[in-house]
Amino acid sequence: MIVDVRKKILIVGLGLLGGSYARALKRFGFHISAITKEQSSIDYALKEKLIDEGTTELDERIIGEADIVVFALYPHIFIDWIEKNQHLLKSGALITDVTGVKCSIVYKVQQMLRDDVEFIAAHPMAGREVSGVENSTDQMFVGANYIVTPTDKNTPEAINTCLELGKLLGFMNVSTLSPEEHDEMIGFLSQLTHCIAITLMTCNDKENMEKYTGDSFRDLTRIARINDLMWSELFIKNKAALLHQMNLFIDKFNELKSMLENEDTDSMRQMMRHSTERRALFDKK
Amino acid sequence: MIVDVRKKILIVGLGLLGGSYARALKRFGFHISAITKEQSSIDYALKEKLIDEGTTELDERIIGEADIVVFALYPHIFIDWIEKNQHLLKSGALITDVTGVKCSIVYKVQQMLRDDVEFIAAHPMAGREVSGVENSTDQMFVGANYIVTPTDKNTPEAINTCLELGKLLGFMNVSTLSPEEHDEMIGFLSQLTHCIAITLMTCNDKENMEKYTGDSFRDLTRIARINDLMWSELFIKNKAALLHQMNLFIDKFNELKSMLENEDTDSMRQMMRHSTERRALFDKK
Repeated sequence: MIVDVRKKILIVGLGLLGGSYARALKRFGFHISAITKEQSSIDYALKEKLIDEGTTELDERIIGEADIVVFALYPHIFIDWIEKNQHLLKSGALITDVTGVKCSIVYKVQQMLRDDVEFIAAHPMAGREVSGVENSTDQMFVGANYIVTPTDKNTPEAINTCLELGKLLGFMNVSTLSPEEHDEMIGFLSQLTHCIAITLMTCNDKENMEKYTGDSFRDLTRIARINDLMWSELFIKNKAALLHQMNLFIDKFNELKSMLENEDTDSMRQMMRHSTERRALFDKK
Repeated sequence: MIVDVRKKILIVGLGLLGGSYARALKRFGFHISAITKEQSSIDYALKEKLIDEGTTELDERIIGEADIVVFALYPHIFIDWIEKNQHLLKSGALITDVTGVKCSIVYKVQQMLRDDVEFIAAHPMAGREVSGVENSTDQMFVGANYIVTPTDKNTPEAINTCLELGKLLGFMNVSTLSPEEHDEMIGFLSQLTHCIAITLMTCNDKENMEKYTGDSFRDLTRIARINDLMWSELFIKNKAALLHQMNLFIDKFNELKSMLENEDTDSMRQMMRHSTERRALFDKK
């Protein structure tokens, strides 16, 4: 193991993700501390032995003692925290995050950060439709992807530590992508799908349709129940990449519409066969 | 029970749906016969006691003895069958179908049909991603919707018989809609969702994305594995209603795109809250 279990890990933001990090890492015997907004989250985490100590204050000792700091915050709160409080971090500390978009975060934070602290960005691709530390579970990362997005400002040591962190957390796939590749991929696989789901859910307000709905419509709109604060911020923070994916989708959708207008069965069937073949790639292995 | 169990029911087209009809109705003791393309389907159904008799031929005795005929065929094959073979039907017979679109089928068939035979259309909203009588099950209709689409050519007796058939088959919800209401509803809930899924699946062919995919993308593309022959026909047979739904979707999607271009967080959040509220209506009760 690269990461020394005597290292102290601080989690800033003890919600669903932060709590699940604490729960998963505690199994290895790390010293875990937490800073978060609500005292009730700290109380719960102490009672459940997810953390060794925690506070709702900006505790200089706790921050100054941490070797690794995980920021599990909304993007703008993370950036704000670094701006205001980075002087409290221990020299040599490694900081990482859980943010779902990268280019607009990574370069900004790395640029403003002290030279003796390193930020290595990561995206744990896991979530649930509930929130809060009370819903955290160390099973949340099983079968999921963990993507580290290094830049040329990162050292091989920090990259390796962050990759190992992903393995310790229990992720099935731990890999690296550039921030640009990450944002393109997430723009397509995650953000575009959420755009589609909320559009489908709101484009036709005819009454009583729920009486006739089947599983297809339910599947396509499961993620239409959405945290508006978080996702609106993530969309805007990945604006260019997401707009590109939205345009790819619209162009193809309009192609299909033309095929239907022209009753072009052959082209429709070809598109459907392409779809069927390509979907097979995405089956759970 | 309105439907006399001594009645003889003929199923034309013994695939997944036709087979599931046979399996469900046999429980009540009806005499079930079948006409289908493949001898292997008949052999299987006889062995499993789903049917009392069956043939791959146009058997005049079997057709002439049937009180109720269920057509579980592709739309154009159904219409073709009626055109060529309706003279073989018993006087007073009731015929019904399983077609997923209604306006383009119901009026045509009712108009061409003999006066002494009644066609009452129905749509069993159930399916699986496999086909064939071997995959049929009497559990397929549990929790699903069965919609009867009467016109002013239908008698109350035929409508009631068809509704009772839906209940005997084991459907959770049995209701009536006009063919127009049905096609609008199905255009939105089923066909538009399939258009979206196949578009999402084919609009970006970048390699290796399956490595990073999560459940959201998988949910939205489950139905992107699609029977191209059947769905291209269903799309074209519901062209006007489906194009209308596609336009509603495109307009709303473009609205969302403008909000993102303008970084209009308030409008995005409002749309997301609307989506979240509306999705709650569609939860399984």
